[in-house]
Amino acid sequence: MNDAPSLHLTAIPGIPKVKAGDDLAAFILVGARHAGLTFESGDALVVTSKIVSKAEGRHVDLSTVTPAERALELAAITGKDPRVVELVLRESVEVSRAAPNVLVVRHRLGFVSANAGIDQSNVDGTDESVLLLPVDPDASAARLHETIQRETGASVGIVISDSHGRPFRVGNVGTAIGVAGMPALLDLRGTTDMFGRVLKISITGYADMVASAAALLTGEGAEGLPVVHVRGLSYPPINGKAAEMNRPPEMDLYRK
Amino acid sequence: MNDAPSLHLTAIPGIPKVKAGDDLAAFILVGARHAGLTFESGDALVVTSKIVSKAEGRHVDLSTVTPAERALELAAITGKDPRVVELVLRESVEVSRAAPNVLVVRHRLGFVSANAGIDQSNVDGTDESVLLLPVDPDASAARLHETIQRETGASVGIVISDSHGRPFRVGNVGTAIGVAGMPALLDLRGTTDMFGRVLKISITGYADMVASAAALLTGEGAEGLPVVHVRGLSYPPINGKAAEMNRPPEMDLYRK
Repeated sequence: MNDAPSLHLTAIPGIPKVKAGDDLAAFILVGARHAGLTFESGDALVVTSKIVSKAEGRHVDLSTVTPAERALELAAITGKDPRVVELVLRESVEVSRAAPNVLVVRHRLGFVSANAGIDQSNVDGTDESVLLLPVDPDASAARLHETIQRETGASVGIVISDSHGRPFRVGNVGTAIGVAGMPALLDLRGTTDMFGRVLKISITGYADMVASAAALLTGEGAEGLPVVHVRGLSYPPINGKAAEMNRPPEMDLYRK
Repeated sequence: MNDAPSLHLTAIPGIPKVKAGDDLAAFILVGARHAGLTFESGDALVVTSKIVSKAEGRHVDLSTVTPAERALELAAITGKDPRVVELVLRESVEVSRAAPNVLVVRHRLGFVSANAGIDQSNVDGTDESVLLLPVDPDASAARLHETIQRETGASVGIVISDSHGRPFRVGNVGTAIGVAGMPALLDLRGTTDMFGRVLKISITGYADMVASAAALLTGEGAEGLPVVHVRGLSYPPINGKAAEMNRPPEMDLYRK
């Protein structure tokens, strides 16, 4: 009908419930084929961190966790399960804020998040089991990128997504915690605007925006649609990492 | 081919250069018709704040601005044009951070942003002209929503978008500063996950994610594609406002 720039996102249906050791790439390739979706270089796949964690066996049974002194202290402040707090501390490098019902940390992966991204919902089993984030989501993304390329011949960008809260703004948004085969950040400095003026500040959180776009389809509830196929992006051939998106504390312009 | 949930975003081509007093709704309706795009209830339109500001005549010629004492002080600290700093102060309620090349404020509209969102690029004319954000983007969005509904019969969600930096993370992302005819926030508390467990914390920054998805098409450079048509969202009939997304300072869980 028209040649207007467009973007098409499709949630891949039929991804089975993921268990430790499962081959996510195989699930994705089979699901895509059944849905009639193809892979071309420049496409992207957004995969929720939850299924990556599950495939990597990142469940922890809380009955196996013994909270140390610091966890007991923070549990008293926050009102959270001391065993969960212990896991949060093991997964983080710094506590940013502890208050009733609030435990915000700098995760060992570099980003700031509530409860170190530890998930107590949607975990199969009893209430005693929680799910940690993947060990190294950039590496997980790179492995998926390589497998998809080997199987399809296409260089498909990978985003491993999580849902993060933000300072200053209400509401969680999709966030990239793992990236491969596409840019994490897109640096437009030096390009010109419509009037030929050089744009001054325009580093774009590209992979975060891709994660947010996909989250409009995956939602956070009962949908069970953990993988989104994206066509129509026009990113340059940059092999980014989500780790580039972490702003070091000393560079945080929003703190006084 | 399949009935997988999908989302289609199309940048509406041929939107003319916008001047003060122009009728954006008319531009959008004509552009969409030429591109073969239709409007159905539940669709959304993402409109960059820049063209809304232009239509509202929010240009300011810097030669007309006399910086007051406070602006001169902050200009000395930041190294910015004192006249721009004066406008930033007029547009904001609080200075969050001033440092060399950095001026972060709480905008009078409630959000925290660099330079109060004042745009010195892409403004038609000389370097002496800058563009302020729309006076009341939620109201601008409501007017667009009403006009589109009157002309097409469809209830189309409107997001007026800007590009904002974030604390803790590198890179700007699309952000909703005006919303009408759709939710700004989507509150999923009380819904259940795949295992029937009640989700605890799941307020989603829905309109921000729609703005980010659209920003993947509009970019920030020379593209000149200021309006994106979105089909495939499945939002409930909530008439949100972007103002709901501002986290009051006393509720900011990320500050110590």
